[in-house]
Amino acid sequence: MILQGACAILFAVRILHTSELTVPLRGDITNAVVNFAEHTVSLVALVSDQAMGGRPVIGIGFNSIGRFGQSGILRERIFPRLLAADPEALMRDGELSPAASAATAMRNEKPGGHGDRAGAVAAVELAAWDLRAKLAGEPACRTIARAFGRTADPSVGVYAAGGYYYQADSTSRLRDELQSYRESGFEAFKIKIGGAPIREDAQRIEAALDVAGLGSNLAVDANGRFDAATADAYAQMLQPYALRWFEEPGDPLDYALNAHLTASYPGPIATGENLFSANDARNLLRYGGMRGEDVFQMDPGLSYGLGEYATMIDAIEAQGFSRRQCFPHGGHLINLHIVAGLGLGGCEAYPGVFQPFGGFGPEVRVASGRATLTERPGFGLEGKPELAEPIARLTEAAV
Amino acid sequence: MILQGACAILFAVRILHTSELTVPLRGDITNAVVNFAEHTVSLVALVSDQAMGGRPVIGIGFNSIGRFGQSGILRERIFPRLLAADPEALMRDGELSPAASAATAMRNEKPGGHGDRAGAVAAVELAAWDLRAKLAGEPACRTIARAFGRTADPSVGVYAAGGYYYQADSTSRLRDELQSYRESGFEAFKIKIGGAPIREDAQRIEAALDVAGLGSNLAVDANGRFDAATADAYAQMLQPYALRWFEEPGDPLDYALNAHLTASYPGPIATGENLFSANDARNLLRYGGMRGEDVFQMDPGLSYGLGEYATMIDAIEAQGFSRRQCFPHGGHLINLHIVAGLGLGGCEAYPGVFQPFGGFGPEVRVASGRATLTERPGFGLEGKPELAEPIARLTEAAV
Repeated sequence: MILQGACAILFAVRILHTSELTVPLRGDITNAVVNFAEHTVSLVALVSDQAMGGRPVIGIGFNSIGRFGQSGILRERIFPRLLAADPEALMRDGELSPAASAATAMRNEKPGGHGDRAGAVAAVELAAWDLRAKLAGEPACRTIARAFGRTADPSVGVYAAGGYYYQADSTSRLRDELQSYRESGFEAFKIKIGGAPIREDAQRIEAALDVAGLGSNLAVDANGRFDAATADAYAQMLQPYALRWFEEPGDPLDYALNAHLTASYPGPIATGENLFSANDARNLLRYGGMRGEDVFQMDPGLSYGLGEYATMIDAIEAQGFSRRQCFPHGGHLINLHIVAGLGLGGCEAYPGVFQPFGGFGPEVRVASGRATLTERPGFGLEGKPELAEPIARLTEAAV
Repeated sequence: MILQGACAILFAVRILHTSELTVPLRGDITNAVVNFAEHTVSLVALVSDQAMGGRPVIGIGFNSIGRFGQSGILRERIFPRLLAADPEALMRDGELSPAASAATAMRNEKPGGHGDRAGAVAAVELAAWDLRAKLAGEPACRTIARAFGRTADPSVGVYAAGGYYYQADSTSRLRDELQSYRESGFEAFKIKIGGAPIREDAQRIEAALDVAGLGSNLAVDANGRFDAATADAYAQMLQPYALRWFEEPGDPLDYALNAHLTASYPGPIATGENLFSANDARNLLRYGGMRGEDVFQMDPGLSYGLGEYATMIDAIEAQGFSRRQCFPHGGHLINLHIVAGLGLGGCEAYPGVFQPFGGFGPEVRVASGRATLTERPGFGLEGKPELAEPIARLTEAAV
């Protein structure tokens, strides 16, 4: 024990620098609630004292897609705590520990209030996973699988999420958009609803089904917009289409509305992308009326990272549900590795939108509705051309 | 109608500048979870185009106490939206509207995730209330009361919150601390528990009762620290003391634990200070097992401001509870005005701690357990000497 402790200290990976870059999302698209043109993402680097091929090994992560960069919380609260910590406080069993990194990031933070902070901590925790995988010289899915006693499956079922409201020619552009996803290997799709009158949304669904074929290949997403009466009206309109799922009908915290819908709508209901802690997810499990066919969409990158997300999966399984019901929000490389490493149901993809973060890049082959991960170490963000420039700026600032 | 609209535009109050100052809290004190020496508060100014006595009228607010300043969210997201808005978009019925200011601050924000963002919006919304009261030349409690169809009661029941864990001589310093509050006019007190073994906490309670007298004059606060077994053990220890309330036994989102305690502990349970939206508060009402004797402690300054807080009060009353059960977290001038304006149960005070924000300042007389507000316009922050320097720096940067 003493020797092991000594080894852990001797080989402690030291975080020499931290860095954050706030990156705007490209594209002027709208869901039922927000326009994404203003949204940003925090790209985070943890520069270690380890070197490979003469260059420092740097962990890179980000706080998923769809909310905002967190430069204030990272620079004012989280980075100072990480840099002030003893290197061994960030280690467990001789390895850099993402869990210990997240716990250090959360020093002196109060319970509750799981919002922007959860994304800021997640970006750091995921950068620690990337660093750990790079130090092991393996893709992150394998590091993650090993940490949780599993075997990674590098082939992941994916669906293309898009179908936003464009400002002109929305329905014909929707069909073209989905057709382009089909041509690039996707077989299942998700489109937005709730940003137009219900009849127009029905027409959008029918246009999307022209491309998707079966209803089981098409999901719809209301982005938490509906009150109970509107949710009921949409449920009635949607029912004959037998869609893959009806996503986030009401406010993410309105568990009573969710339970009402799972009791009355026969198809799958999907929710959870706006729940950012295990305690929030437990409330969905306790009060939300979720069934064996429903879908959990919590996103590690918005909710304190993979460690907290794994706690959610434990709670889901403890309640008798399957991890195959988990399809995390956020269609990007980090979540693809997490789905592969944890054996989840599948992964979202944003092949056409939310650049530079959306989609998986040219190295990941998508065919017949499945994406296959490569052997590139870490999350493989360096293999996505759109990220080359921001990563260069981020690590230039950090080294 | 047309004329009224024209008037509103003619007399629109224009926000010329916004400014934020991150102010550290003074004092090295610890509750069961965190040390406050690292905590900060965002002081926010809205500089209007209106003048009084040759000086611009400036609304000032802050995001309560106990979490962190929000400079990142304010500067990156909220201030640009406010400054980009048409002045009339911030008005309702010819007056500057805090609700419209909060709605503008939330443009392009998604549902859920009520954490740091809720404090950032609150600081702006409360500054809008301060500005509106100053433009009306009256204390904020009166502006607030009128906006909600009430009459302000400038005499408010208050209790002194303190009783933190000091690093040396903790029990004797606790007694001295409460005695000093008694000498400055307080008759009810609150101390921390859960930061020491249960027997030591029992001794702390007995020391506090030496000063407080009756158990009904003493509340205890666990700051969301306990699991179910510890909460039960504390409930058993506390029961014979018949205390004023047992605050936040478990995690703020663990409504099931709260319901278990309200079903088994005969005294009042208080909770809610770490719920930052009306939808979170509704879940407490639905699932938390709250009773007529229990206490709601949601804090406007941490939860999008007074408008969202008033929505919570509506939900509380719709469930058959009384607004007299509401004692907002946060012992400072802003909440004192809100309690006076909305006719709530009472207000927390931090006479000795959390400077420069804690307590009410020398203009507010505290005697026989009640605080009496003055006629100073707005929230009266300018009458608190500890705030003079930060307000000067804030408004210098803004004007």
